[in-house]
Amino acid sequence: MSKPINIGMVGYGFMGRTHSNAYRKVNNFFKTEYHPVLKAVCARDAEKVKEFADNWGYESVETDWRKLVERKDIDAIDICTPNNLHHDIAIAAAANGKMILCEKPLSMNAEEGELMCQAVEKAGVVNTVWYNYRKVPAVTYAKQLIDEGRLGRIFHYRANFLQDWTISADLPQGGTALWRLDAAAAGSGVTGDLLAHCIDTAIWLNGGVQNVTAMTETFIKERKHTLTGKVEKVGIDDACAFLCRFDNGSLGLFESTRYARGHKALYTFEINGEHASIKWDLHDLHRLQWFSHKDEGPLRGWRSIHVTDGDHPYMSHWWVPGLQIGYEHSFVHHVYDFLEGVAKGTPVGPTFRDALETQKVCDAVLKSGKSGNWSEVG
Amino acid sequence: MSKPINIGMVGYGFMGRTHSNAYRKVNNFFKTEYHPVLKAVCARDAEKVKEFADNWGYESVETDWRKLVERKDIDAIDICTPNNLHHDIAIAAAANGKMILCEKPLSMNAEEGELMCQAVEKAGVVNTVWYNYRKVPAVTYAKQLIDEGRLGRIFHYRANFLQDWTISADLPQGGTALWRLDAAAAGSGVTGDLLAHCIDTAIWLNGGVQNVTAMTETFIKERKHTLTGKVEKVGIDDACAFLCRFDNGSLGLFESTRYARGHKALYTFEINGEHASIKWDLHDLHRLQWFSHKDEGPLRGWRSIHVTDGDHPYMSHWWVPGLQIGYEHSFVHHVYDFLEGVAKGTPVGPTFRDALETQKVCDAVLKSGKSGNWSEVG
Amino acid sequence: MSKPINIGMVGYGFMGRTHSNAYRKVNNFFKTEYHPVLKAVCARDAEKVKEFADNWGYESVETDWRKLVERKDIDAIDICTPNNLHHDIAIAAAANGKMILCEKPLSMNAEEGELMCQAVEKAGVVNTVWYNYRKVPAVTYAKQLIDEGRLGRIFHYRANFLQDWTISADLPQGGTALWRLDAAAAGSGVTGDLLAHCIDTAIWLNGGVQNVTAMTETFIKERKHTLTGKVEKVGIDDACAFLCRFDNGSLGLFESTRYARGHKALYTFEINGEHASIKWDLHDLHRLQWFSHKDEGPLRGWRSIHVTDGDHPYMSHWWVPGLQIGYEHSFVHHVYDFLEGVAKGTPVGPTFRDALETQKVCDAVLKSGKSGNWSEVG
Amino acid sequence: MSKPINIGMVGYGFMGRTHSNAYRKVNNFFKTEYHPVLKAVCARDAEKVKEFADNWGYESVETDWRKLVERKDIDAIDICTPNNLHHDIAIAAAANGKMILCEKPLSMNAEEGELMCQAVEKAGVVNTVWYNYRKVPAVTYAKQLIDEGRLGRIFHYRANFLQDWTISADLPQGGTALWRLDAAAAGSGVTGDLLAHCIDTAIWLNGGVQNVTAMTETFIKERKHTLTGKVEKVGIDDACAFLCRFDNGSLGLFESTRYARGHKALYTFEINGEHASIKWDLHDLHRLQWFSHKDEGPLRGWRSIHVTDGDHPYMSHWWVPGLQIGYEHSFVHHVYDFLEGVAKGTPVGPTFRDALETQKVCDAVLKSGKSGNWSEVG
Repeated sequence: MSKPINIGMVGYGFMGRTHSNAYRKVNNFFKTEYHPVLKAVCARDAEKVKEFADNWGYESVETDWRKLVERKDIDAIDICTPNNLHHDIAIAAAANGKMILCEKPLSMNAEEGELMCQAVEKAGVVNTVWYNYRKVPAVTYAKQLIDEGRLGRIFHYRANFLQDWTISADLPQGGTALWRLDAAAAGSGVTGDLLAHCIDTAIWLNGGVQNVTAMTETFIKERKHTLTGKVEKVGIDDACAFLCRFDNGSLGLFESTRYARGHKALYTFEINGEHASIKWDLHDLHRLQWFSHKDEGPLRGWRSIHVTDGDHPYMSHWWVPGLQIGYEHSFVHHVYDFLEGVAKGTPVGPTFRDALETQKVCDAVLKSGKSGNWSEVG
Repeated sequence: MSKPINIGMVGYGFMGRTHSNAYRKVNNFFKTEYHPVLKAVCARDAEKVKEFADNWGYESVETDWRKLVERKDIDAIDICTPNNLHHDIAIAAAANGKMILCEKPLSMNAEEGELMCQAVEKAGVVNTVWYNYRKVPAVTYAKQLIDEGRLGRIFHYRANFLQDWTISADLPQGGTALWRLDAAAAGSGVTGDLLAHCIDTAIWLNGGVQNVTAMTETFIKERKHTLTGKVEKVGIDDACAFLCRFDNGSLGLFESTRYARGHKALYTFEINGEHASIKWDLHDLHRLQWFSHKDEGPLRGWRSIHVTDGDHPYMSHWWVPGLQIGYEHSFVHHVYDFLEGVAKGTPVGPTFRDALETQKVCDAVLKSGKSGNWSEVG
Repeated sequence: MSKPINIGMVGYGFMGRTHSNAYRKVNNFFKTEYHPVLKAVCARDAEKVKEFADNWGYESVETDWRKLVERKDIDAIDICTPNNLHHDIAIAAAANGKMILCEKPLSMNAEEGELMCQAVEKAGVVNTVWYNYRKVPAVTYAKQLIDEGRLGRIFHYRANFLQDWTISADLPQGGTALWRLDAAAAGSGVTGDLLAHCIDTAIWLNGGVQNVTAMTETFIKERKHTLTGKVEKVGIDDACAFLCRFDNGSLGLFESTRYARGHKALYTFEINGEHASIKWDLHDLHRLQWFSHKDEGPLRGWRSIHVTDGDHPYMSHWWVPGLQIGYEHSFVHHVYDFLEGVAKGTPVGPTFRDALETQKVCDAVLKSGKSGNWSEVG
Repeated sequence: MSKPINIGMVGYGFMGRTHSNAYRKVNNFFKTEYHPVLKAVCARDAEKVKEFADNWGYESVETDWRKLVERKDIDAIDICTPNNLHHDIAIAAAANGKMILCEKPLSMNAEEGELMCQAVEKAGVVNTVWYNYRKVPAVTYAKQLIDEGRLGRIFHYRANFLQDWTISADLPQGGTALWRLDAAAAGSGVTGDLLAHCIDTAIWLNGGVQNVTAMTETFIKERKHTLTGKVEKVGIDDACAFLCRFDNGSLGLFESTRYARGHKALYTFEINGEHASIKWDLHDLHRLQWFSHKDEGPLRGWRSIHVTDGDHPYMSHWWVPGLQIGYEHSFVHHVYDFLEGVAKGTPVGPTFRDALETQKVCDAVLKSGKSGNWSEVG
């Protein structure tokens, strides 16, 4: 008989929806020893949070996250707030012995992140950060291929995350909808929002980063602030690119922007190894591009693998070969991995400690962006 | 306050899963006046149907569909059985005043289908057939573009549905898993299974078909039958291709097979009009290809539209631009359209009558495949 | 020391240019025992043919092809005229013992073609028909893969040739530029012009065609005739599609049109075999798509082979890997094959006899298009 | 009557072939006031240069370039030697009043380049550098679109040039075939060979570069030297990536390597502007990708423009729409532009002075790669 894990979620924005959907769906498709129960959702606006709870089937609501983390009937806290609250909620949740599922990036900076890691490790609670793109089957499959040593020595890793939604100078900053443009709430711009995804995947697939040199830019220098109503300086980075060296000797190239006309959420990565190369992009997330030098000479070519077969990661649980899944399924897989980790007593990657590595790279990137010098990571 | 529609589903195979998932999800994303309630699921194997019910949250089970269709607490019957049962269940459900959602194809042949249409029309019950690909946003958007007259006079319509899962001669026919290879249960092979989808979309987008000339083939002539254990003649068509003329004067070309190595579920269509052309394929279902001759000369080119924006059909209900949905969402949209139709008292397309048109084309195709002559539709 | 073959070309239109370019280029890239010499070009308009000769370096001009074919200093006659002259010129050239390179299609119909075959065979002269797409490296490589048995049993062959240049009703028919719209000069429309290419490749790759059922259409029924100045009935087929059965038991599907908005010269073919499938298209002619079921399960995918490596057919003669060639090079390869055939005394494929097979299929297609019945080939 | 320009070419390697082909072909397709005459080719190996001359139709040979540049019957010197000879030959050619067509990169470094510029400017001779990718119709068309202001404010420019031909550690360095791996002959590795192309296009399309931060790497530290027979340190950069800021405020990201498995000559660039974006890649050089935000909302998408129409740059001179040209045609167009420039007395871009700008960026890149600091350009 499957055992319940009572979820208490803080925040109900876009990520609140993706997580709730994942909790609701996971056990229709995956058999697990534990199953999530939508126990409570918490946000400051009592009316709106009630509406959200009704829509998704949460049993109760809270308007103060401090109360939520103290509730005895809650097993796990899911943190979906803006970044500036991650630290306080996580520390409190750990102190109350709750498991924690925290939205990415882990924290506003590595210092905060280190404290969060210490807190969960001291408390001995299950902890994970929602770097969901690891859980896209094509990406998970890439990890398998790399772990099997199929690429040989790695020479290059390149990734970018391109969007175009902030090109208009009329877009305001701050508030519920646009907190990602507000440095006070988000900590940084594309670095923490988008590059953090790229870096997490990169570290997972290609190992640690030694040092970086970065360039950041804020194209629109001032925007009206939703909360103050005044035109204020924009504190975030609109775009960021950096070069780096990995521990394994390979070279990295990363770029992110919200000013790349024509791209909505184009997260791509490519890895070039001695024997084979891999490419992936989020706009067609169900495909993996694969080139193997070990293929017969004249037949060599980039393969477009439709990652929908039963022998692809996670896919035997879904439909039939040829029928694609979408963005939301990465979160279902993350919940599945979480439930499996709880059952087996194994870490649920990416853990806080894993995510801290990404945070350290982000810090080094932002530091280099300001100084113009190479920054060591960590 | 949203009102319940109690669903009673017959069958729990692959389609049972897609429908159950759709019923469970629809109201997390779509606000509707009515909402589906998973009241009962019915199948002959008591143990297995109980397991299915538990997994998806059905309140009760039945093992005799005749009982199900008579239950007073059931508002709508969802038929997910092999094709040879559609007729009897639908007639009985209509006689009991139930709304009906029937899997495609409507029936074993047009005669059966005509009786089913008469039954639902006489009973005055809401009826729809799960030609779900109409509900893929890119396909729905194609319909909008055509209805707006943007293509001008239509010259060509071509579609195919290519799979490769029956190439092995070791694959048996018949039984629960492989009834699609058994003519007694399926009626036909790729014609009713795959071409029916292509034809339904074609009629929806391009109007009625006048006549056809077809070629059918059974590549593997004998297969072991799962139910009898004996090697028996294969009665279905492994592959079918046909040419046709549409009422609007355009020419049609259709092909389907389960012997196209490299294609899992590659349903594609293309329409060529005087002013513009459209292409779509199921392997990347979130994209629509568009070519407009009205674009400025040297800038003309096929556009790959990532159909994930808020102004694309259904998509404002899902995630954010750039994040794709998958196969299963077409069923959610179908349920949404069903709920809207019930609320507004409007037909829920494709209705039984719509699906009968597809059935007539299938019949003409199979007839022509045998005779070698052109067949008139209808 | 390389020996000369004196070329006498009849006609100087589009094909006159592609051939002349090929003759001029071939020996810069290919070492051969024989080399072509641009001896004479012939056309009725003395001024224009002189201009053409000057441009391409022909040593002399003629205005009467009968004189050309009798000239002692001419070794080979290249026929680039409209289709209705192929027969007479070829018969006369053969009678004069000239080698013949004839533009496709071979003839106006199979009867003419048979006489042409008999003439060249009786005269014992080298003969070839410019079905140049066989000589695109990616297509030649497809032939190699098939000949090596890599596809196993073939199930399907599909091809189409889509254009959009005659959609405007204002386009006239006939005359120098538009003889392809004039049935008297062209014999047929897309069947002889475009499908002939598809059929030639198909027979080469997949063997003979047994029988066909076809559908033809003339969308614009009347057009002004350039020569008469009057609006006249259009006698050609604007579009043609047919189904067929090959000798090897596989099913064929062919389509061609000049009314497919968005396609300029999209010749595509796909072959599905038991073990592997192949796709190619003329719009990206330097690529071959390959899917092998023998690849490791989860790594299976369509490979996009960039056919530019030294181990691809003809390519070691050109640039370096990754640098593509274009349309014109197929003609250079044809000339190279011609020169090699002359040197070795082997037939230069496709020969007249090969091309006659294509003619027979075209005839059967046109016959079936009229009768509505299946037609046997040959 | 067209007037001759007598060409004297130094070097006969890969570039010697591309140029010779271009000189031979240009006037078959383009009418010009001047036409090139293959007067002489020069290389140290008398036998080989004779063979080359015979193959391409050069009237004479030389074995000492100093003699060639002094010949009265030579109008233009084409420099196709390794980079370390560009300077001396160009200076001498200018002193003799010859027009100069110099292979890229202009020189070993900016100092040399500046002297070369001064020499040609003082001599008042026509000068151009073979950055041939400007002359690919899709790239030229991109330039048109940008010059028309269609992209609006530019935010991003990214380019890379990826190859994989030096991954094997067994590959030697130096000598005729592999001088590009020898720092003494090439000056640098991928920076001068490949990034120079990317930078030239970037400056042409997007204006000057202000400053850069770069990372270089030599993956294989030692290789046998062909000339000495000994294992020697590799002095070139195997890979190089850099970030930069353009004068127009946009951000640049460039990368090149010969260790990207699966890419033969994948030169790509992408430009993101306020209103539109452009992408191009050399592996499918006849296509341009275009995204316009000015397109109607839901119909927005990346267009794949098949740059083969008569209204595309240079293309009216070639075949018919839909039929692609290849790599070699970029050189034909360069010769055409050269002939036009001579006729009109206008500079032939890219001039030596244009190419010097690229050289300065290369120098800054190499300097930054060593120092780890940002370098100012020029």
